[in-house]
Amino acid sequence: MTRSEHFRIIRHEPGREASEVEDPVAIEEPLEIRVGGRPISVTMRTPGDDEALVAGFLLSEGLLRRREDLLRIARCDVESGGEGGATVNAIVGPAVTVELAKLTRHVFASSSCGLCGVATIDAIRKIFPPIASDLRLDASMVRALPDRLRAVQPTFDATGGLHAAALVDEHGAILHAAEDVGRHNAVDKVIGRAFLDGTLPAPRAILMVSGRASFEIVQKALSAGVGAIVAISAPSSLAIELARASGITLIGFLRQRGFNVYSGSERVR
Amino acid sequence: MTRSEHFRIIRHEPGREASEVEDPVAIEEPLEIRVGGRPISVTMRTPGDDEALVAGFLLSEGLLRRREDLLRIARCDVESGGEGGATVNAIVGPAVTVELAKLTRHVFASSSCGLCGVATIDAIRKIFPPIASDLRLDASMVRALPDRLRAVQPTFDATGGLHAAALVDEHGAILHAAEDVGRHNAVDKVIGRAFLDGTLPAPRAILMVSGRASFEIVQKALSAGVGAIVAISAPSSLAIELARASGITLIGFLRQRGFNVYSGSERVR
Repeated sequence: MTRSEHFRIIRHEPGREASEVEDPVAIEEPLEIRVGGRPISVTMRTPGDDEALVAGFLLSEGLLRRREDLLRIARCDVESGGEGGATVNAIVGPAVTVELAKLTRHVFASSSCGLCGVATIDAIRKIFPPIASDLRLDASMVRALPDRLRAVQPTFDATGGLHAAALVDEHGAILHAAEDVGRHNAVDKVIGRAFLDGTLPAPRAILMVSGRASFEIVQKALSAGVGAIVAISAPSSLAIELARASGITLIGFLRQRGFNVYSGSERVR
Repeated sequence: MTRSEHFRIIRHEPGREASEVEDPVAIEEPLEIRVGGRPISVTMRTPGDDEALVAGFLLSEGLLRRREDLLRIARCDVESGGEGGATVNAIVGPAVTVELAKLTRHVFASSSCGLCGVATIDAIRKIFPPIASDLRLDASMVRALPDRLRAVQPTFDATGGLHAAALVDEHGAILHAAEDVGRHNAVDKVIGRAFLDGTLPAPRAILMVSGRASFEIVQKALSAGVGAIVAISAPSSLAIELARASGITLIGFLRQRGFNVYSGSERVR
């Protein structure tokens, strides 16, 4: 099972022409988990070891206790446009009672057996309109963002255990910043603050995150109507695909020596 | 709002006596999110900006669209033993229809308004028994683990976008390893594989993770009945508390120059 795929991206380095390169990206795709035919969760995962993933998930949710509780794990793959879409159904023994209320995380999948990346992006696009933005990003401003984020991120340096997110304007000024043990929470805090202030959508604003950019992070940026995402670390395949489908500029691997543009490179100069 | 607290931990460095030190740790505590009084999610978050967190969460779930959709956010804090427990209730306008089936993540909180770290740990301990293990961890074996994990983690070096997890025996031999865009998925894959093989509980095994150790990771280790968790990066406060309450040895910040023991240090020599 392949765990990465190549994307054509734009590489920016100081003192050089921007150049198109091939970049390996970790694959992120949805997996629907069913128990006895009932959908109980959709997880965004890297394909591979799906049966083990489902067994481990159900074990840690307290649904499976002993090996004999799990009779069989059946894959229910359907045509998914080569996107790796998958549904896995766990057949459990009669001693196992599936109490949905006791599971710590529920997802009611709207799709029938055929969940895949393309369908997921289509579903998101039905909820959130694409971004129309005349935002322009100056490469040297982008490279200066990590130092700015670090300056307003007091706890991170002390504990090493927090993610940070910020909403910045097109000149790199920080509008809102937040820290949290969860990256998605830090993003919720900054877009939520802007929402409460009545300043969304913000097509000329940039969402910055301290770590990686997953599908969920791009979904949150889209819901806030921001024009660009800048991540210190790598994006996932589905994050890139959603950014491209939604008109969001996506920058990753931001370092002093440059950065990668995965989507919307026409906004970067 | 304070975002970190100090824990007394044991610091191991090569060629030195292990020593007790104070270490700042990022706080992780549950927040129950309600909409119109109905619990829709429990998120593990760092306290602070809770109203913004809830607004951002509901925005990115597609439940709120415009500022006027949100009438008020009411906190419902109760006595929680100083654990920062909190419930936040969002009062939404009449135009907002709360379709639970459309939310991508549901959590049906079992507790009434009084969710906190202590209650969460108590709930987990009712599901999973504490670990009884005569595991002994050799400090030099522990320090060698990152190199071993890196050797079996092929995609990570190529993309930088994957988390890795492994189940290793008390001598440091890798039993199962997995990679995923989600750290919790990588852990599910390795404990799920051991479950499918019928080798759980595994009180003399060690769960190793490439990143941080959150409450959820400790919950998964506990469900698999492993004796120790080794994380390359920082643990959260609630991860430490659950590990201590469950008899799991928790090691973090593992580097060539040493590591920190946050729980169960009597197993490390």
